[in-house]
Amino acid sequence: MSLEIKDDEIDIVIGAVSSDMTSFLNEWRPIFSRFHLIIVKDPDLKEELKIPEGFNLDVYTKSDIDRVVGSSTSILFSGYSCRYFGYLVSLKKYIISVDNDCLPARDNKGFLVDAVAQHITNLTTPATPFFFNTLYDPFSEGADFVRGYPFSLRSGVKCALSCGLWLNLADHDAPTQALKTRQRNSRYVDAVITVPARALAPISGINIAFDREVVGPALVPALRLAGEGKFRWETMEDIWSGMCVKVVCDHLGLGVKSGLPYVWRTDRGDAISSLKKEWEGVKLMEEVVPFFQSVRLPRTATTAEDCVVEVAKAVKEQLGSTDPVFARAAGAMLDWVKLWKSVGSSSSPPGV
Amino acid sequence: MSLEIKDDEIDIVIGAVSSDMTSFLNEWRPIFSRFHLIIVKDPDLKEELKIPEGFNLDVYTKSDIDRVVGSSTSILFSGYSCRYFGYLVSLKKYIISVDNDCLPARDNKGFLVDAVAQHITNLTTPATPFFFNTLYDPFSEGADFVRGYPFSLRSGVKCALSCGLWLNLADHDAPTQALKTRQRNSRYVDAVITVPARALAPISGINIAFDREVVGPALVPALRLAGEGKFRWETMEDIWSGMCVKVVCDHLGLGVKSGLPYVWRTDRGDAISSLKKEWEGVKLMEEVVPFFQSVRLPRTATTAEDCVVEVAKAVKEQLGSTDPVFARAAGAMLDWVKLWKSVGSSSSPPGV
Repeated sequence: MSLEIKDDEIDIVIGAVSSDMTSFLNEWRPIFSRFHLIIVKDPDLKEELKIPEGFNLDVYTKSDIDRVVGSSTSILFSGYSCRYFGYLVSLKKYIISVDNDCLPARDNKGFLVDAVAQHITNLTTPATPFFFNTLYDPFSEGADFVRGYPFSLRSGVKCALSCGLWLNLADHDAPTQALKTRQRNSRYVDAVITVPARALAPISGINIAFDREVVGPALVPALRLAGEGKFRWETMEDIWSGMCVKVVCDHLGLGVKSGLPYVWRTDRGDAISSLKKEWEGVKLMEEVVPFFQSVRLPRTATTAEDCVVEVAKAVKEQLGSTDPVFARAAGAMLDWVKLWKSVGSSSSPPGV
Repeated sequence: MSLEIKDDEIDIVIGAVSSDMTSFLNEWRPIFSRFHLIIVKDPDLKEELKIPEGFNLDVYTKSDIDRVVGSSTSILFSGYSCRYFGYLVSLKKYIISVDNDCLPARDNKGFLVDAVAQHITNLTTPATPFFFNTLYDPFSEGADFVRGYPFSLRSGVKCALSCGLWLNLADHDAPTQALKTRQRNSRYVDAVITVPARALAPISGINIAFDREVVGPALVPALRLAGEGKFRWETMEDIWSGMCVKVVCDHLGLGVKSGLPYVWRTDRGDAISSLKKEWEGVKLMEEVVPFFQSVRLPRTATTAEDCVVEVAKAVKEQLGSTDPVFARAAGAMLDWVKLWKSVGSSSSPPGV
């Protein structure tokens, strides 16, 4: 792992959407035990959390959320969105977040993947969004810029977001998951890529890391589907948040990487029953993508907070009338920036 | 390999920049022997070519070039650029071209890579330039679009160009090759990526395939460095041509893929002596990249030929005064389009 980063600059944020965290945390123990963990319990979850001994962690529950956030906000921290509360109260520079149905993966040679080390390497080496390097990440070991890569762009830019991938259960939407119930991802692609500037990608929140100080406020729990349930394939919050953070990074000249590290997603849930919910994600994406592809932020927006406010304004103006879900998203984004500023680094530990 | 493509729709074009083709062709025999080969001898090469028996091939030499092209052109087909003559006289829909210091590679499991089959798969499955799929090529086996990928973009667009990669000797420029003489690429990345729209990449001509009918004229031998020699790291013709073809593909709504298949590049040449030539590629790229990043083609340009003419005009206007190499490149591009139209599909076999 990058030498200049200390363990106490990192928070591992886990959203507990199911109550028994025993096997999840035990499997991750060799990788997570050096770090401080923030576990945020889904406020809809009734059962008590089961958490094994031996971790340095803080658990946040509904009462902590109510105390810190209060009732004067449109943001809902239920389901997968509970993780965002961890982003909010963290005091660290780097956040790493993994869904609690994911276990450590093994690489092509059978070695356990240290997802934390890889994410931190991704975040602490430059990104190259302004020209695509065909041999992938030029800063990875044994790699370099290929012939024809402009020398003036070889120093790259700061990487703000690292999006890891998934083996076994791939991250499909409800219709694809229902159509291809048996399809599993077994392709381990040994690469990290900077997503080029102005290219959008479906950024998943399953396995991500980011520089909280630089782009934290742009990871925003804003878009909530009407029929949203407790399976990833029923949600869109991270996809919306991902497009928002990509647009913000492009505007601020920051990089977004995708690729290594992988995690192993365990099977769960019944995709067919999810499909019966008439997943509105299909329809919404057709409005959302052209919006994010065309939105331009003013030069006066120089921080992530500024940028989110500008995106929220544009959402309200351009999408607000097409579907009430967008007006709510815009409102949540503005509330989020206010929360981030008021809670932010001044937040107190849980239960105090 | 894609079932709908017949072997006789493909030409393998090899530029012979060294005379003994025996081991090259024998190593490729299991993969190439089904196809028609076009071998173009570097007109600067004095020795006679050594070519093993058992291939269906045509060899073109300086006298063929002189006969077909004549003297009324600014295009030089010497060195690596001799391959372009093969593109010109081919009568096939698909061209695959590999440098003659490359041998078939082996994948992570030790299996021989069928570079032809992979290139044709890349060209005959859609490309996805308008949204980045984090699990790489959604049309490869076992892969799909991930959650959040807009449904309206899932049909993709026609892929016009497939850029393969290299194991062992990576494709560095002269300074990098001289600084890292011992660095070898051993990372086999099992992925194909569509280079997003409006993102440029250093497209190498070492191992490529393209749809000749659709973008053939946009692969153009235009930029020749003053001190250009017989090593790839001393050349820029393919880098220039690659930016030209990418801009043309973006304008015409076509896709460019990068990744598999790999070839194995054998070691040759002395990078230190190349460096002594004061490689001007470093300086030129700083002018070239902003130009190609900003050039926009008129809507009236609807074919690759039209587009190349428009790019040539813009090169002359915007770069022509900065360095004589650019004015020559613009001239060569216009001559190339004329040649393509006059020779094109009406070309006769060699030596007739």
